[in-house]
Amino acid sequence: MRLSPSLSIDRAQLLADLDRLSLIGRAPDGGMTRRALSREDAEARSYVMERMRAAGLDVRHDEVGNVRARRRGRCKAPDGPCVMTGSHLDSVPSGGKLDGPLGVVGALAAIEALDRAGVHTDKPIEIAIFVGEEGSRFPRGTIGSAAMSGHVAVEAILALQDPDGIVYRDALATYGDRGVPLPGCAEKGSIDSFVELHVEQGGVLEASGVPIGVVTAIAGLVQRRVAFLGDANHAGATPMNLRHDALLAAADWCLSVERAAQVVGGGAVGTVGKLEVSPGGKNIIPGRVDAICDLRAPQPLLLSAIDELVLAALRASAAPRGVEFEQVLLQRVEPGPMDERPMRAVEAAAAACGLLAQRMPSGAIHDALHLAEACPSTMIFVPSIGGKSHCPTEATDPQHLMQGCEVLAHTLAILAG
Amino acid sequence: MRLSPSLSIDRAQLLADLDRLSLIGRAPDGGMTRRALSREDAEARSYVMERMRAAGLDVRHDEVGNVRARRRGRCKAPDGPCVMTGSHLDSVPSGGKLDGPLGVVGALAAIEALDRAGVHTDKPIEIAIFVGEEGSRFPRGTIGSAAMSGHVAVEAILALQDPDGIVYRDALATYGDRGVPLPGCAEKGSIDSFVELHVEQGGVLEASGVPIGVVTAIAGLVQRRVAFLGDANHAGATPMNLRHDALLAAADWCLSVERAAQVVGGGAVGTVGKLEVSPGGKNIIPGRVDAICDLRAPQPLLLSAIDELVLAALRASAAPRGVEFEQVLLQRVEPGPMDERPMRAVEAAAAACGLLAQRMPSGAIHDALHLAEACPSTMIFVPSIGGKSHCPTEATDPQHLMQGCEVLAHTLAILAG
Repeated sequence: MRLSPSLSIDRAQLLADLDRLSLIGRAPDGGMTRRALSREDAEARSYVMERMRAAGLDVRHDEVGNVRARRRGRCKAPDGPCVMTGSHLDSVPSGGKLDGPLGVVGALAAIEALDRAGVHTDKPIEIAIFVGEEGSRFPRGTIGSAAMSGHVAVEAILALQDPDGIVYRDALATYGDRGVPLPGCAEKGSIDSFVELHVEQGGVLEASGVPIGVVTAIAGLVQRRVAFLGDANHAGATPMNLRHDALLAAADWCLSVERAAQVVGGGAVGTVGKLEVSPGGKNIIPGRVDAICDLRAPQPLLLSAIDELVLAALRASAAPRGVEFEQVLLQRVEPGPMDERPMRAVEAAAAACGLLAQRMPSGAIHDALHLAEACPSTMIFVPSIGGKSHCPTEATDPQHLMQGCEVLAHTLAILAG
Repeated sequence: MRLSPSLSIDRAQLLADLDRLSLIGRAPDGGMTRRALSREDAEARSYVMERMRAAGLDVRHDEVGNVRARRRGRCKAPDGPCVMTGSHLDSVPSGGKLDGPLGVVGALAAIEALDRAGVHTDKPIEIAIFVGEEGSRFPRGTIGSAAMSGHVAVEAILALQDPDGIVYRDALATYGDRGVPLPGCAEKGSIDSFVELHVEQGGVLEASGVPIGVVTAIAGLVQRRVAFLGDANHAGATPMNLRHDALLAAADWCLSVERAAQVVGGGAVGTVGKLEVSPGGKNIIPGRVDAICDLRAPQPLLLSAIDELVLAALRASAAPRGVEFEQVLLQRVEPGPMDERPMRAVEAAAAACGLLAQRMPSGAIHDALHLAEACPSTMIFVPSIGGKSHCPTEATDPQHLMQGCEVLAHTLAILAG
């Protein structure tokens, strides 16, 4: 098909959809909490499914609760490979209104724009609502996409338990309307390509003034739990040279994590976000510090490099102070490279819309990480104001939301041909 | 009087007294909790007062609840200036068995040794049980000694409130047996000199292998509450150069506190014992850190020097990361110099016992800090195993306990003449 400059997004409808979803699970602080398979999650999904049906889509669900809503293609095989887009509706506790929902209702807005412009594509287009992306209920995130890509077996997902001991399978049974069942969810050949619209959740686009990010890779992740074991003693009575201060060892190591990211470069980042000091008395030398470091990089070699530097820094920080340490790997997720074909489609779409686009890695993990294992994938990022996300103040300029949807509509038209 | 080498301590009685007191307010972890004026505090005091009366002492109390138990002197004026010793019976939450009690029952053991040896002194000797030394209930510590020295007005102390809103005056009314009332507690001329036996609570004596410490000064104290205000953002999506990580600023500052103590020297110490990271998510860049630093030095100029370095380090740590900070002075306590006369008496007493003694500052605050405002004062330290204190594992070799009491007995004999 030819690119149509007339693919216009219904701004009022898009913003109304986002506002409507932001009321579901709304907390007093203005954030929203929709844990996977919860009542609030189901309510949000029902709202979107009703909108999908009204838009003429064929709404189905798979074995783990993912929704797949299909717009028919012109080609002979109605069940042939589709171009997929979509995101998730579950949230972190007290999260923002865009992380997830933008990629779902933005996809709907894009398809409605195709409909209004009379654009028909050869391949079907599907909007996916991936279940349990955030990991705020069950012991892992990206549940739905991991199942869809075959990364994790369906049986393993159905056996997951939340902290209250509720099994995924049982929670799924109470999840409400899920549409018409699909035969299975691990259907690699059924997806031609995947593109997910999402807020950046960082400040790169805002800093560069570019409205569209084209994601080149989902950064991999290493998280390690670290304990520094010193000697809790009286802060007044213990001379500096007789101390084994666990916090000083930890402080030195935190600065090493920062230096490791700077040394490795290439988009690697390292963070100590959680750090607890024991016993925590104002006049007691810290005897123990428990911390978690979160290391990310868009390439496996870079991820291993920062991890090795951070591990080596443990000894360098602890030993000179006579402090012991322990560490355990919590998780390692390999980076997910995106594919040139959908990336170029996004760039062509942005050009058709007269918008600048820049290639960038995603430091956050998304469902696209797993979809990339099953088909050529990428993501479209729009700027986050102040780089804020996972908080009630998460926001994007409405103009940028519109532009993201417009680029997505053109991208879908290009990929579905 | 002549020094008598026959001043022998009743080891079994001393250890039995310490053991008996350690059962009062005993917690499951083996520590003991005796908050000021509590039932447990009163029970401990009753036990000791009974022992005091059995030893023939005249047991009285003052307006804030301090006990003063007097052994008569030979001089004409029975109410003339006394040589005072003693310590406290209240404890930190889950504290050790020696911090406080050793200086009380050790004093009793010393007086009983004088009695057994038939040593009579010209001046009276008094054992004080100071009330509320630890500050674990009312908003300040060293309550009894601050009142006795006139450092704080009696009325101000009686008006103190604990966290439950209970006023000191009312708590005192339920404090049980306090002996015979004294006319007042701020009687500067009534005390000739003061010497307090205490565990070191640090590792200096253990490291040097010397059994007796002669305290030259009580270190002064500056405590400041500090907040670092950064920007909480997604740990994956925010490049290193766009961060305002409050924990990295705080970590840098913690290391500066250590360096400041090393630069100032002269016994100055600096500790960050309390540090809290917000929001504390493992994948969120810390947006805020709240910390308290505790700075100590045995001389006012050194205390000001370390305080100024630590304050200057706040800006140096925060500004390069675009992190803001706030700080507020929680308290400043001036150092208390000890007096040569009682210090030399302790050294002579140690020599008479054939024991090495070394001069050292006390990094911890004690009742001697306030007594020094009213009369020539010092303290006798005995080694703490592993430098441990304010914890259930606080301990001292029984031989060192005995030696401390023996040196105290000789010191009292010298000072009371």
